[in-house]
Amino acid sequence: MNINALPKSVETLVDSQGNLLLRVIDQRALPQKLIIQECNSYVQVIEAISNLSVRGAPLIGFCGAAALGIWVCNETHHATEIVSKKLGTIASQIVNTRPTAINLSTEVIALKRLIEQKLANGVDALSLTSFIADYLLEIALNDELRNRTIGELGASLLQNKKNSVLTHCNAGSLATVFYGTALGIIYSAAEKGLIDCVYIDETRPVGQGARLTSWELSQAGIEGTLICDNMAASVMAAGKIDAVIIGADRICSNGDVANKIGSYGLSVLAAHHNIPFYVAAPLSTFDFSLDNGTMIPIEQRASTEITSMSLPGINVFNPAFDVTPAELITCYITEKGIFTAQELDDLGKSI
Amino acid sequence: MNINALPKSVETLVDSQGNLLLRVIDQRALPQKLIIQECNSYVQVIEAISNLSVRGAPLIGFCGAAALGIWVCNETHHATEIVSKKLGTIASQIVNTRPTAINLSTEVIALKRLIEQKLANGVDALSLTSFIADYLLEIALNDELRNRTIGELGASLLQNKKNSVLTHCNAGSLATVFYGTALGIIYSAAEKGLIDCVYIDETRPVGQGARLTSWELSQAGIEGTLICDNMAASVMAAGKIDAVIIGADRICSNGDVANKIGSYGLSVLAAHHNIPFYVAAPLSTFDFSLDNGTMIPIEQRASTEITSMSLPGINVFNPAFDVTPAELITCYITEKGIFTAQELDDLGKSI
Repeated sequence: MNINALPKSVETLVDSQGNLLLRVIDQRALPQKLIIQECNSYVQVIEAISNLSVRGAPLIGFCGAAALGIWVCNETHHATEIVSKKLGTIASQIVNTRPTAINLSTEVIALKRLIEQKLANGVDALSLTSFIADYLLEIALNDELRNRTIGELGASLLQNKKNSVLTHCNAGSLATVFYGTALGIIYSAAEKGLIDCVYIDETRPVGQGARLTSWELSQAGIEGTLICDNMAASVMAAGKIDAVIIGADRICSNGDVANKIGSYGLSVLAAHHNIPFYVAAPLSTFDFSLDNGTMIPIEQRASTEITSMSLPGINVFNPAFDVTPAELITCYITEKGIFTAQELDDLGKSI
Repeated sequence: MNINALPKSVETLVDSQGNLLLRVIDQRALPQKLIIQECNSYVQVIEAISNLSVRGAPLIGFCGAAALGIWVCNETHHATEIVSKKLGTIASQIVNTRPTAINLSTEVIALKRLIEQKLANGVDALSLTSFIADYLLEIALNDELRNRTIGELGASLLQNKKNSVLTHCNAGSLATVFYGTALGIIYSAAEKGLIDCVYIDETRPVGQGARLTSWELSQAGIEGTLICDNMAASVMAAGKIDAVIIGADRICSNGDVANKIGSYGLSVLAAHHNIPFYVAAPLSTFDFSLDNGTMIPIEQRASTEITSMSLPGINVFNPAFDVTPAELITCYITEKGIFTAQELDDLGKSI
């Protein structure tokens, strides 16, 4: 196990012309090729989020903030008037790229407010570049730190033996800046010698498990076994799973969780087999403004993601996410601690 | 809805040289192409069963019997001594092609016994061709008749409204000689105006739902909606499913059912959502010699069926079937009537 064999998913830097750049791993090319894609306009970042070059709630949150920063630094001629006038519109355009993960709007709005404050305090747009570049470096570092905390806390929930865990989609280093949430728990547990095997749901239709989690675990030197999504129940019934650990795209105040399609079914199966079902996510994934999961917008994606094997023209239902009700979730593992659904109310009031 | 737009999956005939031939739809080529493959040796039939040109418990049962017949008629020089001496070995070879569906051994052994009886009664091997050809025509006809009975009985279980049903894999006309078991119920119900929409699990890794059920329903003029296997729970939670109907590969005396991988998970999800879970199968699918599902051999298939999207060399778990325990099955629909698990014991004693 060597976590440092994993590359960072994303990097920001300022080039010699003073332009803010975002470099991302193009996750569409994995596991066959490791391609780094460079974005110097906010539209390029929007495109990368939209076409799934970058995905994963914390990562698209970071990239959304970077997109707003890139627009301010590279595309406004450092004109305070342009920044002031259009900042809200550009921020909305970025936030609307994908609807389900709340991190995108959380991170974009956080940076937008800071920029507005700066401008309100008379700071010149020209001087924003170094501020924004520093801010992005800081939230990238915080992403890793909070993931390591989540990892440490989550690992404490596993039994003191070699555990086999099941994960769905990719809530790994590739879904964050570095280290990951659900996979962060697995990395931390593996360092303590607590992991036997990670069962990887392939996660149709886009294959984030088959393509990304299998690659990431193999890079980090952790044993993985790939299964089709419909095999999870059999593996559970055979007594092979000690815990299910997933990430999240949005968590409501009552604890309902939107996550990659298939997560809800897994939660029902885990409950049936008395297997703990853990959701790992940073606080930026919580949306305390929503009472419950029926209020979360669920992205519907193109039917062509599914129809590779079928008749052309067949009707397709292709929701990218589903909602797992709070009562099927054992607990939520965040950088601020481990909470049950009943405890989330207090957490919401405290932040 | 026009059931006659569906071709028969299989046909046997005797050519002008007196050879027994088996013609099958090569299901690997669907839905792109309708290719008819002709077998005139038993090894060709074994190969077609093994490589999934033909699949589905009742259909491989029929093809197994046809393989034994082809060997007797085409490959023994009509020598009674050869037939007597090798019949058991050839039958075993055919039965061992795939382990899970009991229909294969049921049908092969039934024909083997009839041939042994004929030989014991002094019938010459030369005269077996017309007997075997007639026998195969009869069991093909019986397959359709019993499927139509299953269809009629199963349709009576649906509510008197436009129902939406979910099915997994292909237990359709393509899994039988004609008409199908689970899809037979849907055809019968559609004729009565009781079907709104059929949700089709794509059924990874081989895609029998995406490739075969979607094609078959479209040929018959029934509205289908394709989903990934991991979406079934969401569709159920949205209240879109009135019943789940699947076929079976083997049913034990206690009612445990081996069927295509993913069936077990669906049964847990159906129970959680209070949706009836129906298993449609002819009596030839029942194995009253087995007390429960732990005794059913589950075929493990090649990892390459799964790894198209993943890293080469990743560990893979690829069971082709799973076992659904009797307590999660609402009832069994057979050509002899509808039974609960509790009633199967009497059924076993009566046949």
